[in-house]
This record gives sequence, structure tokens and C-alpha cells, in this order.
Amino acid sequence: MIKDISNLPAKLEALLTAQKNKNSEGKVADYIPALAKVDPNHMGISVATINGNVIGAGDSQVPFSIQSISKVFGLVMAMNRIGDDLWQRVNMEPSGQPFNSIIQLEWEKGIPRNPVINAGALLVADVLTSNYSASKLAFLSFMRTLASDDNIFIDKKVYQSELTHGSRNAALAYLMKSFDNIQSDIPEVLSHYFTQCSIAMSCQQLAKSLLFLANKGLDPISQKSICSARDAHRVNAILSTSGMYDQSGEFAFSVGLPAKSGVGGGVVAIVPGYGVICTWSPPLNTFGNSVIGTNLVSGLAEELGLSIYH
Amino acid sequence: MIKDISNLPAKLEALLTAQKNKNSEGKVADYIPALAKVDPNHMGISVATINGNVIGAGDSQVPFSIQSISKVFGLVMAMNRIGDDLWQRVNMEPSGQPFNSIIQLEWEKGIPRNPVINAGALLVADVLTSNYSASKLAFLSFMRTLASDDNIFIDKKVYQSELTHGSRNAALAYLMKSFDNIQSDIPEVLSHYFTQCSIAMSCQQLAKSLLFLANKGLDPISQKSICSARDAHRVNAILSTSGMYDQSGEFAFSVGLPAKSGVGGGVVAIVPGYGVICTWSPPLNTFGNSVIGTNLVSGLAEELGLSIYH
Amino acid sequence: MIKDISNLPAKLEALLTAQKNKNSEGKVADYIPALAKVDPNHMGISVATINGNVIGAGDSQVPFSIQSISKVFGLVMAMNRIGDDLWQRVNMEPSGQPFNSIIQLEWEKGIPRNPVINAGALLVADVLTSNYSASKLAFLSFMRTLASDDNIFIDKKVYQSELTHGSRNAALAYLMKSFDNIQSDIPEVLSHYFTQCSIAMSCQQLAKSLLFLANKGLDPISQKSICSARDAHRVNAILSTSGMYDQSGEFAFSVGLPAKSGVGGGVVAIVPGYGVICTWSPPLNTFGNSVIGTNLVSGLAEELGLSIYH
Amino acid sequence: MIKDISNLPAKLEALLTAQKNKNSEGKVADYIPALAKVDPNHMGISVATINGNVIGAGDSQVPFSIQSISKVFGLVMAMNRIGDDLWQRVNMEPSGQPFNSIIQLEWEKGIPRNPVINAGALLVADVLTSNYSASKLAFLSFMRTLASDDNIFIDKKVYQSELTHGSRNAALAYLMKSFDNIQSDIPEVLSHYFTQCSIAMSCQQLAKSLLFLANKGLDPISQKSICSARDAHRVNAILSTSGMYDQSGEFAFSVGLPAKSGVGGGVVAIVPGYGVICTWSPPLNTFGNSVIGTNLVSGLAEELGLSIYH
Repeated sequence: MIKDISNLPAKLEALLTAQKNKNSEGKVADYIPALAKVDPNHMGISVATINGNVIGAGDSQVPFSIQSISKVFGLVMAMNRIGDDLWQRVNMEPSGQPFNSIIQLEWEKGIPRNPVINAGALLVADVLTSNYSASKLAFLSFMRTLASDDNIFIDKKVYQSELTHGSRNAALAYLMKSFDNIQSDIPEVLSHYFTQCSIAMSCQQLAKSLLFLANKGLDPISQKSICSARDAHRVNAILSTSGMYDQSGEFAFSVGLPAKSGVGGGVVAIVPGYGVICTWSPPLNTFGNSVIGTNLVSGLAEELGLSIYH
Repeated sequence: MIKDISNLPAKLEALLTAQKNKNSEGKVADYIPALAKVDPNHMGISVATINGNVIGAGDSQVPFSIQSISKVFGLVMAMNRIGDDLWQRVNMEPSGQPFNSIIQLEWEKGIPRNPVINAGALLVADVLTSNYSASKLAFLSFMRTLASDDNIFIDKKVYQSELTHGSRNAALAYLMKSFDNIQSDIPEVLSHYFTQCSIAMSCQQLAKSLLFLANKGLDPISQKSICSARDAHRVNAILSTSGMYDQSGEFAFSVGLPAKSGVGGGVVAIVPGYGVICTWSPPLNTFGNSVIGTNLVSGLAEELGLSIYH
Repeated sequence: MIKDISNLPAKLEALLTAQKNKNSEGKVADYIPALAKVDPNHMGISVATINGNVIGAGDSQVPFSIQSISKVFGLVMAMNRIGDDLWQRVNMEPSGQPFNSIIQLEWEKGIPRNPVINAGALLVADVLTSNYSASKLAFLSFMRTLASDDNIFIDKKVYQSELTHGSRNAALAYLMKSFDNIQSDIPEVLSHYFTQCSIAMSCQQLAKSLLFLANKGLDPISQKSICSARDAHRVNAILSTSGMYDQSGEFAFSVGLPAKSGVGGGVVAIVPGYGVICTWSPPLNTFGNSVIGTNLVSGLAEELGLSIYH
Repeated sequence: MIKDISNLPAKLEALLTAQKNKNSEGKVADYIPALAKVDPNHMGISVATINGNVIGAGDSQVPFSIQSISKVFGLVMAMNRIGDDLWQRVNMEPSGQPFNSIIQLEWEKGIPRNPVINAGALLVADVLTSNYSASKLAFLSFMRTLASDDNIFIDKKVYQSELTHGSRNAALAYLMKSFDNIQSDIPEVLSHYFTQCSIAMSCQQLAKSLLFLANKGLDPISQKSICSARDAHRVNAILSTSGMYDQSGEFAFSVGLPAKSGVGGGVVAIVPGYGVICTWSPPLNTFGNSVIGTNLVSGLAEELGLSIYH
């Protein structure tokens, strides 16, 4: 692993330049109007290292809808709150299915395969709504603390759009409830879940806020313990096998980093012992992963030798 | 990662001692008579490091049926022989299904999810039988070279037993053939596959023979290139997401190493940049993984801080 | 077919007598408390013929929860209201799956296999709520007209119980909505559906109210056309392939009549050109069909040679 | 039901005339070369009644490949041979799946849903090969006896073609064997199955040979008992719920007769108490049923009021 960062700014610029004109290879998420309107030409990258450097290029400070990246933070909050009880209600196996598969949830009798597919994230949302008096505020507050930045907000238009088009998530939640694996009322669970998905953050904010996962649970800037070393390990393991939807295996195969993507076009990748990469470009491939965002992480990981599988 | 090995012999002995009396938690594979007869009290561990150390404890030199561990070697041979064409015929995604699932193979139209579930390994066996004039000999020869040991043989009784009880594997192979994803005749493919599964090797032989995966494709002893660095990376990635059957996610979550198990009771784990661990104990848990074998890898990984997710 | 009914009263009594003490072979539905409380010893049978005879034995005039038998009436109402447009939104194939399977609904992209599995009945409920200003009243009114009896009511306790335990039906409805195959709001659809399931009727009322299906759509008593001959044919066909849950094939195989059962313990069977049989006994077999109710229909059909497959 | 047959010849001719030019709506089976070569313009219909009339039109005496229609005869032979033991090994429920689904067979642990999907027919073939010293000869002999015609043969080219393209059927058979639900060797089972599928017969021969199903098991011509009345009932029930592949529900819904189709373009329909209709036209719809063949049965059934659901 190359730890010298002196050439990093130039490298990031070069990587962005090489991806220009590639956004036609993907398609901006259009299942909700609020996301469909985003300019497909946005492109940003940010690298935060555990020794305190934050380097960005392109639109690295422009906020975007974090969507499924929020699942990582929800998982950490839930582990902190209820400990190993969580793993009685959700598994930690890769799913081998689309992120919103209801077939698998039925087979496994309401126990989601892992906490980063939709069913698992809804289960986590239920844990949060059941265990926090104001789970949405708690979530937003957690995000602001991690990013050391109060300038993080919920995009109300995205939230409303999600709610209007949330029937499949409602189906997943009711199915889990039919197996007695949901405690709160479904509308409350969905409202929490769509709220956390609708948070807007920049590459820079996201990269900084996830440094604790690269540093055994400890935020290297504030020196606060965000979670145990064991739980940081667990999150990285889950992101390695399941973080990039049904392309997780290919991402491990060709890139080799724990990562999570969102349909807003963001990708975060954890480099244990080094730092965090966050990229953003709205057009998605057929798996729901940002085409350029994935290319940027892949290019940087290869150039710096960051893979955990070497 | 702790690289000092001076205390390793004592540690291995201690780990074995701690696992005594735990073999009643599992059950020796009984789907074929030849495996059912193995003494459940065998227990061995071997660690080979890329700088040439080989340390063992217990039955580390007693040969056992490598079974699915052979899938790793078959994969390497097939990648070496036909290159990226392989990935047109088999995917690299975790399966989220039992290792011998025919449902998923039907869904995915005869393209196995990855090369370490049975369907994928049969596909690899087809590549080998189609591209080698004597694929079984070539396989055995590859194993002997890797282990620098000519004293490696096929257990004929196991082979005959496998053949007699091979209907499900035949079903998988014929289903792939119905999708035009098998080139050789099925009996030949099955014969190759059961042959490679029936090879008997010891922990020590297996640990040494896989060092190239911990060393970017290069055998650190002979300095021969066994495969490209890129392919070593790919194998480690696949073993990380899919090597421990439908317990792969949990193994990543709690141990954090690329690994492969076999129903003979063996487990191999790759530690990139360090070496290879191989353990053996016949009784299996419900996923088909050795109970004690998994515990031994887990214990050593934790003590030495070997996980790739920290 | 034996059309002489002079011996029928004695036959019905004999059939009931033969089934005494058999209710321990089944189990009263207990998924909702309101049904679990029903006395398992109730037993009744009623035969209504198209030439105006109505003969009963046992508890043939005691009202019970009609549950899924209501699906037959809902289907007729929906066909009458929107005609063949219905068949764009629901199929007419047997399902080969449990009545409440969500897996199949996902596979078939939100189009239920037929209108007498739960998903299909919810789709029909959506048609009714979308096309009637007061669909529940319209339904109750339809039932009273068919039975020529105003003494038919909704069991409020059953309704409340259904609503409280309706998560799986909610999941089915939301999944269909996610495929744009539901028009009304889900709570309204569910409320209608649970209402029609909660109607209480006796064997005698049910037998009389379904005579039109045995008489090409024409109520033989009032001489009113209830539906077209073609639609009566269609309903009988659907009940023949799918009316007895996942035991429909066996029922056709051994009895040979279009029939519909409900978890309240009722069974209705149509004998085209002859009449209707309705039986009731609360204990159910593992498929959700009344053990004794099925035996009674079977016994009578055999004795009178009623099967349509001879 | 109109039993006067004096106008039947003219009616059949009129039905054929109305279907001219419709064969472009379907596609001749092309999964094996031997079937793909058949002239798509063939069209025939034959009606045999239980009182001895046999009336045909078009190519009613031209032999064609009976394919899956052979499943009906195999089933009768197996029931005659092993009685109710058969129903321990195959179910009688509609499948709700394509005729060659391996997914369902896996779910149901090697027990086919019914004897007229491929898995079930292979199971029946196993019963025949295990219980007859020369099952193929016995089958051919049974066909000749039923049709009172020794001029019935196996089409060797079709047989060879089937064998070459039989991988999916081999997969189904091996999967059943893995569940211990096949007794003979698979190659022998497949050879029997492809043999019976490759028999060539005309509409007239088929219609006559199935009269016993319309007559409670008794051949009305020879007055020989072919099977019990109970088994004739059972076969008709199975054909009603499952005889027309995954279009069986729609066929019941719109036509209303026990029927069986084959990919050679033949359709047989049983009219209990009346007789048998057999039609032939090679082009198939997407379900594998003859487009014109189905139309012909439907037209005649409607005109004569033959449906069992009225």
C-alpha cells in the first residue's frame, strides 16, 4: 500500500479526467422524480486518511442523496444500541439476490440475509424506531457528529418521493411483520428509513464520517470511539461480501475493498489502516452502482495497491 | 499482524488442546460410506509462511480427503488454461444458496454463480477435461508440484463412493449442458470432478501448496509463478465471499480471511502477505464446515491479528 | 347422476353419523383468536337443487365465518362490474403454491395466478373498492339477495381479529401496488377484503346463494340472471383447478366437483345441472380444508355419482 | 350436450376451413431437428364416440409425433401395474410452473407435482422400465391394442433427436434419483421415455384409443376393461387441471374438457359419456400447445355444448 499522499491531488484529477464522457454508459436513477432530475455530469472524489488528510477533486463538496449508503450508519447505530441481539433478527450472509428481493425474505421466514439489503435495512430501521424516542433526529445527529459538520440536512423532496413510491419496501416490512420480526408500526419504520435515505451529503463529508471503520472503530480526528473494533471488523466484512448490491462479488474480484453504494450515485470504500474513498457520479449501471463512481474507486485502488486481497 | 513465529508451535498446541472434546458438536460426513468411516478424533493444524517456515501440530501430516478444497486448485488451472474466457461461463458472485443448489442454476440459465459452488466446480472440471488430453493426471501432477511432494494420491474407495452417490452432481451437469454451457460428455466431467475431490493430502501439504495465493501468485519456495498476481487476487476475493459454503458471510464477519473448506473436514485459509493456515478435523457443522477446523483458524487469526478487515 | 332426492335426508344423516369422532383429525384455525374459539364439534350439511329443494342435516342453519368462500362472490361481482378487463390484472391458472405465496406473485410481476388465492382475492377487492362507492355494503347486499335472506351479517370480532393479523395480506397488496396493479389505497382494500371474509352464513344460506353457478348463471328460484352462462362456466373452471387451496388436484382426483373452502371450516361444491352442496365442520387439515367438510362432500358425491369427470 | 352426429362431418369441415391461414400465429417445435421439418400446413380433426362412430376431416389419418400425449398412456399402464403405490412417488396437484421446471422438483424433494409434467412422466417411465422386462415393446403393444391397429410405429429419427437433446430431462431424472425416487438406471429410463414420445399416430388412431377414458375405463368397441372406473376418473381429473401445460387453467376456463397436448401439435380431449376429440396442427403457441389444434377443440366443444363445467 502506497501511503505517501503528495501525488494524490494530481492523481485524483487525472482519474476524473479519464472518466469524462463515460456517463452515457449509465442511467440516472428514475424510480422517483426527485432523483431523476439530478445533473448526470456531476463527478466528484474525496479521500480521507486516518492521519488527518482530506483531499478532493471535482464536485467533492456538492451534497447528493446518500440513499443506501445510509445503511452503513444505521447498522452501526443499531449494533451500538442493542448489541448482539441484532444478529438474532438479521443474518450476515451475502444474498445472491437483487437488493429488494422478497422471495428470499419469504424463504428465510422473515430473517433478512444481511443488514445492507433493503429488508435488512428496514429491520435495522425498526430497531432504531423502537429504541430511540426520536430516531430520525438521532440519526441526523449521528451523521453530523461523524462528519463534524452541522451542515447536513434531509432532502424533503426526495423523502416525499420515496414515500410515494415506497410500496415494495412496505411489502418487505409487512412480510417481516407477518413473521413477527418487526416491532414498531410499519408507517413509522418506513418514515425513518426514507428519512435516512434522503439525507444529502458530499463526498468529503462521507469520507470523513466513515474513517472510524478504517481505524478499528475509533474516529482518528476526534479520538472518540464510534464503535468497538469488533463491530468495525464486522461492518467491513459485510460490506466486502454484500455492499455493492448483486455486483459485490465482481467488485471484490476486481477492486478488493469493503464498499457501499447508493442509487444517488455515491460509492464509499473503506481501506483498513489507511482511510476512506468516496466518489460520486449519478449514472448507474444495471446493478444500481454508479458507473463512474465504481471506476474511480477501482482506478485509485489499483494505482495505490489498496486491495485487501493481495 | 504478528509476524514473529517463535511462539507459534506452542500456540498451535494450545489451540488444539482447547478444542479436545469438541468434536461431538459436529457430525462426520456420511453421504458416502468411504468418508463416514474416518476417525472423528483426528485433529491437525499447519501454518506455512511465505518466508519458508512450516509449523504443525497434531495430525498435521496425516492425509485426508481434500474434497471441495480441490475447487481452488481446479480454478487456478482453468484460469491459467483459458484465461478470461472462463468468466463468460461462470460468474464470481456469492450464491446465497446451499452449495449444491439447482434452483439458482436454473434461474441463472446454466451460468453458475461462482466457481466454488458445485455447479461452478463442475463447469471448471469441464474446462479441464476439454482442454487437457489427460486432465486427471494433469491435476494430480499440479498438486504434486505445488506441494513439492510426489507422495500425493487419489483415494480410489472415496472416488468409487462419490461416483455411486453422484446423482445430484449429474443433475447439475446435465442442466448446464441443456443450456449449452458444458462441452465434454457428462460422465467424463463427473469422473474428473470426483477424482480431484478424492485426492488425499495432509494439512502440511495443503498449506505449502497454497502459498502462492498469499504471495501474489508466486510460489515463495520455488520462486515459480503459479498464476498472475491478478488471478491470485481474484481467487482470494472469491474465497472471501464464497469459500465457506453458506456460512461464508459469518466466517468473514468473525474471522476475516479468504478460506475454503471441504466435507473431508479440512479448512484452508489464506493470509495475504503472510502465509497459509490449514486445519483438519472430520466432524462438520450443518453448513458442511469442520467445527473444530473452523475454530482453530478463528483462534489463530484472532491471536495473531490476521484478519484482512481490520 | 342420481336426481331422485327422496332418500337424501336419510343419506345426509348417515353421512354425518359416519363422521362423528373424526374432528380430532384436524385443527381449528388459530391464526386469529376469534376463529380459534369456535366449537370444533359443529357439523352441518345442506343440499340445494336447481329445481328448488333444500335439504339439510346437523348444524345446517348455524352461521359460521365464510372466510375464503367469499372469494367466489367477490369474483362474480368483479366480473359483472368490469368484464374481461379483470383478466388483464389477474390470471386463471392454478398456482401450485400455498394460497398466500408471495414468491409466485413476485415471479409473475404482481399478476396473481388466479382470483381465489389471497393475492387474487385482494386484487378483486381492489376492483370492488375502486368501482363501488360503498363496496362493503354492496357486497353484503349481494349476499343477502343471493340467499334471499336479510339475516346475514358481518362478524365484527372476526373482522377486528383479521385486521390485527393482516400483515401478510398487506405485504401481498403492497407488492401488487409496487407493480402498479392496485388502484385504491391499501388500507381500504384490506378493510374491504377482511369485511367480506368476516361475513357469517349458514350451510343452507350458502348452498342457496350459489345455485346460479349450477344453472348457467341464472338463479333458479328467482329466475334472475346473476351472471352470464360464460362467467358461471369460468367460475366453475377456476374452482375445479384452484378452489381447494394446494389440495385442489387431489380433490378433483378423488371427488371431482368445482368447490371452494374457507378456514372457517366451510366447503361449497357446485354440481352443474343439479345443485349445490355446502358442508361445515371447523377442524382443518394441513392444507386449510375442513377434514369432515371434505369427507361429507366426497361421500355424497360418490353416492350420487355427481363427479364431472365420469 | 348435443349427441346427434348427423351434422358432424359438415361441422368438422367448417371448423377446419375457418382455421386456414391461422398457422402463422404459432411456431413449429424446433428444439429437435426431426420435429422442425414437419409441414406446418397439416391440419386434422377426428371425433370418436363411445357408441362407435368415428368421424374425421383434413389430415385425420396422417400420423404425427404424439410426444407428451404419450404421458396419458404411460400413466394408465403404471396405475394398472403398481396401483396406488404410484401416488407415493408422484403427486396429483397442478404445478403452476413450466412443464420442465426443475425448481419445483427440488422444492418438493424429488416428488413430481403430477404425472403429466416431464418429471412426473419420467417417474412413470421409471415405473414401467422397473416393472416390465421389455417396457418399450409393452408400451407399443398397449398402443396398438387400444387403437386396434398394428400399424403404429416409433419414429426412429425423432427418437435419436430426442436422445441427443435430452439433457434437461436427464437433469430432472438424476435429481429425482438423488432423492431416491428413481429405481432403474437413468439411461434406461430416458430411452423408454423418448421411445414413447417418438411414437407416430394419427388423430383417428388417438381418438379411438382413448375412448375408455370417456367410458369409465371400458373400451366401448372391444368391451374390454382398460382401467378401473376410478382410475379413468383420476386421469380425467389430472388432465383437467394439468393437461395443457401452463395454459391448463385457461383451457378449463374457456373450453372445459380434460385434455392433453404434445409438442408434435396434437391435442386430445376427453368428453365423459360422449367420446374423444383429437386434433392436429404443428404450429405451437408460447405454452407449447397447438394454436389451431386448440382452436378446433374449443370450437367444437362450444358448438356441441360439451364442457363439463356447465
